[in-house]
Amino acid sequence: MSAWRLAETDPLPEPDAARPDRPRSGARRLLVVAAVVLLTLVGAGGLAAAGTGMFSAERPEGCVKPDRSLQLYAVELPKDGTQIRLGYGLTPETASYPGPTMEMMEGECLAITLHNQVSAETLAALRTNPAHPLGVSLHVHGVKYTQQSDGTVQSESFVPPGGSRTYTWYAAPRNNRTGAQGTAGYWWYHDHVVGGPHGTQGLSSGLFGGLVVRRPGDPKPDRTYVTAFGDRQSINLRRGEATDTCDAANPQPGPTCLVARKGERVEFVVVGIGNDMHTFHLHGHSWADTRTGMVSNGQPFADSVPIIDNKTLGPGDSFGVQVVAGDSVGPGHWMLHCHMQFHSDAGMSTMLHVLDENGQMPPGMDHQHPAVADAGQPTGDSQPATDGGAHQHG
Amino acid sequence: MSAWRLAETDPLPEPDAARPDRPRSGARRLLVVAAVVLLTLVGAGGLAAAGTGMFSAERPEGCVKPDRSLQLYAVELPKDGTQIRLGYGLTPETASYPGPTMEMMEGECLAITLHNQVSAETLAALRTNPAHPLGVSLHVHGVKYTQQSDGTVQSESFVPPGGSRTYTWYAAPRNNRTGAQGTAGYWWYHDHVVGGPHGTQGLSSGLFGGLVVRRPGDPKPDRTYVTAFGDRQSINLRRGEATDTCDAANPQPGPTCLVARKGERVEFVVVGIGNDMHTFHLHGHSWADTRTGMVSNGQPFADSVPIIDNKTLGPGDSFGVQVVAGDSVGPGHWMLHCHMQFHSDAGMSTMLHVLDENGQMPPGMDHQHPAVADAGQPTGDSQPATDGGAHQHG
Amino acid sequence: MSAWRLAETDPLPEPDAARPDRPRSGARRLLVVAAVVLLTLVGAGGLAAAGTGMFSAERPEGCVKPDRSLQLYAVELPKDGTQIRLGYGLTPETASYPGPTMEMMEGECLAITLHNQVSAETLAALRTNPAHPLGVSLHVHGVKYTQQSDGTVQSESFVPPGGSRTYTWYAAPRNNRTGAQGTAGYWWYHDHVVGGPHGTQGLSSGLFGGLVVRRPGDPKPDRTYVTAFGDRQSINLRRGEATDTCDAANPQPGPTCLVARKGERVEFVVVGIGNDMHTFHLHGHSWADTRTGMVSNGQPFADSVPIIDNKTLGPGDSFGVQVVAGDSVGPGHWMLHCHMQFHSDAGMSTMLHVLDENGQMPPGMDHQHPAVADAGQPTGDSQPATDGGAHQHG
Repeated sequence: MSAWRLAETDPLPEPDAARPDRPRSGARRLLVVAAVVLLTLVGAGGLAAAGTGMFSAERPEGCVKPDRSLQLYAVELPKDGTQIRLGYGLTPETASYPGPTMEMMEGECLAITLHNQVSAETLAALRTNPAHPLGVSLHVHGVKYTQQSDGTVQSESFVPPGGSRTYTWYAAPRNNRTGAQGTAGYWWYHDHVVGGPHGTQGLSSGLFGGLVVRRPGDPKPDRTYVTAFGDRQSINLRRGEATDTCDAANPQPGPTCLVARKGERVEFVVVGIGNDMHTFHLHGHSWADTRTGMVSNGQPFADSVPIIDNKTLGPGDSFGVQVVAGDSVGPGHWMLHCHMQFHSDAGMSTMLHVLDENGQMPPGMDHQHPAVADAGQPTGDSQPATDGGAHQHG
Repeated sequence: MSAWRLAETDPLPEPDAARPDRPRSGARRLLVVAAVVLLTLVGAGGLAAAGTGMFSAERPEGCVKPDRSLQLYAVELPKDGTQIRLGYGLTPETASYPGPTMEMMEGECLAITLHNQVSAETLAALRTNPAHPLGVSLHVHGVKYTQQSDGTVQSESFVPPGGSRTYTWYAAPRNNRTGAQGTAGYWWYHDHVVGGPHGTQGLSSGLFGGLVVRRPGDPKPDRTYVTAFGDRQSINLRRGEATDTCDAANPQPGPTCLVARKGERVEFVVVGIGNDMHTFHLHGHSWADTRTGMVSNGQPFADSVPIIDNKTLGPGDSFGVQVVAGDSVGPGHWMLHCHMQFHSDAGMSTMLHVLDENGQMPPGMDHQHPAVADAGQPTGDSQPATDGGAHQHG
Repeated sequence: MSAWRLAETDPLPEPDAARPDRPRSGARRLLVVAAVVLLTLVGAGGLAAAGTGMFSAERPEGCVKPDRSLQLYAVELPKDGTQIRLGYGLTPETASYPGPTMEMMEGECLAITLHNQVSAETLAALRTNPAHPLGVSLHVHGVKYTQQSDGTVQSESFVPPGGSRTYTWYAAPRNNRTGAQGTAGYWWYHDHVVGGPHGTQGLSSGLFGGLVVRRPGDPKPDRTYVTAFGDRQSINLRRGEATDTCDAANPQPGPTCLVARKGERVEFVVVGIGNDMHTFHLHGHSWADTRTGMVSNGQPFADSVPIIDNKTLGPGDSFGVQVVAGDSVGPGHWMLHCHMQFHSDAGMSTMLHVLDENGQMPPGMDHQHPAVADAGQPTGDSQPATDGGAHQHG
């Protein structure tokens, strides 16, 4: 079982870069070793790898030692009807679904110690195959990690009930020498173990959260909201009225209360989970289909970038949407929904409540909602000036 | 109910930009007011807003007054079997599905007065919840509008039977000062009220149309066709033979007769409606996955742009495809279909008929179609020169 | 039936470019004719077209004569249970699903003679409509071809049992004069005739393969794998354990054995087939959402390109993913799966086995797999250094 080895008679052409005896390659190897040694002067964690010339299975290359560490707790939350709910939290008391939104800068290495406080009984109730191991894990998209932080069963990188395990994420920056692209982007993390080898039950129970990796120079939004579409017609595992719990008198921004003042830069981390396709559509606002959800006017390619207000996403997809709340369109209750009609009709719809600059909803916009059924008839007779004037182009 | 207001103890960090007492912000506000006053010199419509310092709920910022106005009629069309059909038209007599393709230039502000000529009886037949109000609306993607032009129930911006209402759309241009991206793009408009709060019955009855917002300098196509994919295996609510009604002797370009001469630039406004995913696939032609469906060779980023001939779209998505008809591949009947096999097999397939430069279909290509069932066997023995010559790269 | 002709009273505005009497257009026409004549000096195949001024129905414009030719065989393979399996092969003996991965350079013209060795009995068993003709065809995405190489029933470009037919593909390069974009990209080819007019049964039986068109200067990968997602929860028509047939002792790269050494550049040609949506997700690796799956750092637009590790695709879609195997993350068994949970749970999951630079799987990573059911409990107590040090940004 030990010999995962390419055959001597490799049926595909073997590139020069893979030959150990190639002179230029040898010179490059020297440089690499030198670099590793240099790094070990500032981080003892890299020593073992440098000493043996072997890849460290513990941390991805580039992460000599974690820059930061945090504790994460997987806990059982109150049931939603009969549906078991689990959540990640920075403390057991603050666990939620989605879990805490993580933020990293390119270049940063983060060690997260996951404590599994979900009982074996609960985990057993979520599996159908009694041979499947009981545990919770942390699998992340976009950033770098070794097999030890993969969060999968086959890599044995999960946490049994009552245990803990440290996962190391490295937000690798661009590397102009190797051509490696950076890891800045809108990502997410989730369990990959609960219920089966793909964590399907962990995900549908609530074990997921957003991750934003920023590049130096990226604009910093005023508000960040995670909107995970999935679980058959729900946003963040909630549907219908539960997708909007804003207190009309005192709206507190939160997972189910999307609110901003006019002019604030609002960022959505949009994530697809579950089995279905969805679309993220926001009334009155649009964004650029780029890494950041923005594009700088004046750059030569900016003219080619699609500006969109509806984006399709499948499970596993994640992207960022950045808008200036109420820009040009003003305050009001702006719908945010999946544009698949049977999804929005089933309750996959909520609001971005845009207040005015003073934090108030202007008079005339504070209709009762979402109980629109008895809203009655509108006047239907507003008549703005339509002068039929000359057709002018800017 | 009146106090949609952010709490004093805002749980999210409050950015500098939102503080009214910030010196630099104050200076900027002065500039903004000056700009508004300047605008009011040329457009009386902006006066009220400038005078009170309040946002005008009537028109989006930047639209001082509409540059153009038009009348739009929502009418009931002859049933398609038992299916109720509605359509928008610039006159009641010309209503159709899709509705008229709108075209705007960035910078333009358009006032559209929608007249609802659909009877209360028909609208009542399309709703299942008797508490849902009866009406028709106009909701648009991509361009700017205030809550008064949102076309939704909760904003009370719809039109009861027999009524009319003016919607104001502003094709906002790029703003290099604020960084706002322009609204140029391929968009669409649709009802958001018929049958339920998401207009699902209005959409599936035919109340939708395409919108193209161009930027100065954008190429102008010779032909524009709207292809809306949706309603379970149909193009523009038609499937099978009804997707192609071209008169073989005298093909008239129209919603169900896609025809062009070789060398003409043809633009498709591709829209997703309904519940399902689809793909737009065109035989023999490809396009760039950019804002315009094109890319200019020679620009440094052009080499990175994906060129595609099949694009997936979900409901609410819209994009533009631009091709030069028959370029390199010549005239003929080029299939246009959804590549989901069960959709194309169910009739979600039509043709782009490319005539030669003289407007004729060349001999040998005017096969009977789409009744291919009895086409018999092809000769299967055409043998172009295949000289097995040296493998050359351009 | 002969007069596919635009009406004299064309209801759409006729652009200048289409008028034969336009002076500048006349001058341009002269240039075009001159160019064609020049081309005929080096390729006799273009003569007929130049002589008559008519478009050649045989080869796309730009392909004067094929640069290369090859033979392709459509054969019946052993059944998969009761499922008929067909495959394309460069010889009848090497036919497989997916078929051989084709590679072209922009500027190249390729003549492929398809020999249909599938029996009439088998083809008859795959159709439900007895009027549908029996045959096999070759339809290709992305590159240029005339109606004679469309591979469809209505163009009569398919091959009856026992017959053969030559298809001509032209990988047209960019044309800065006309603005035509090049055809470099990740494409695929497939039958369009077996069972019905969209080749649904041909596709689901195995008649498809990948095509890569490269542009001069494009990086050449060390390994290329085709992963076609479709047929309800399968990769390359295989699901569950059959998606990974690697011999642990001696892994041979192949359609169902994805293996690479650390540092090798691996290219995936990802294709969607069938009826369903899927996502391509690879653990530990990410790529750029561009034409090549890469982006060059330092280019001004590079910063705007989304870096992703999960991409949604519909049937007909194809794209390229390029990664450096194990870069930063090291060797190991890296999962590759559809992120739709019910798909991955049903077996739409495999591995990219990344060996170390010496072609070995490092100790501790050669777990038994995919029989993870009895893997038992992990230690769950690995504790990397988490020093809680200062939060540093690169």
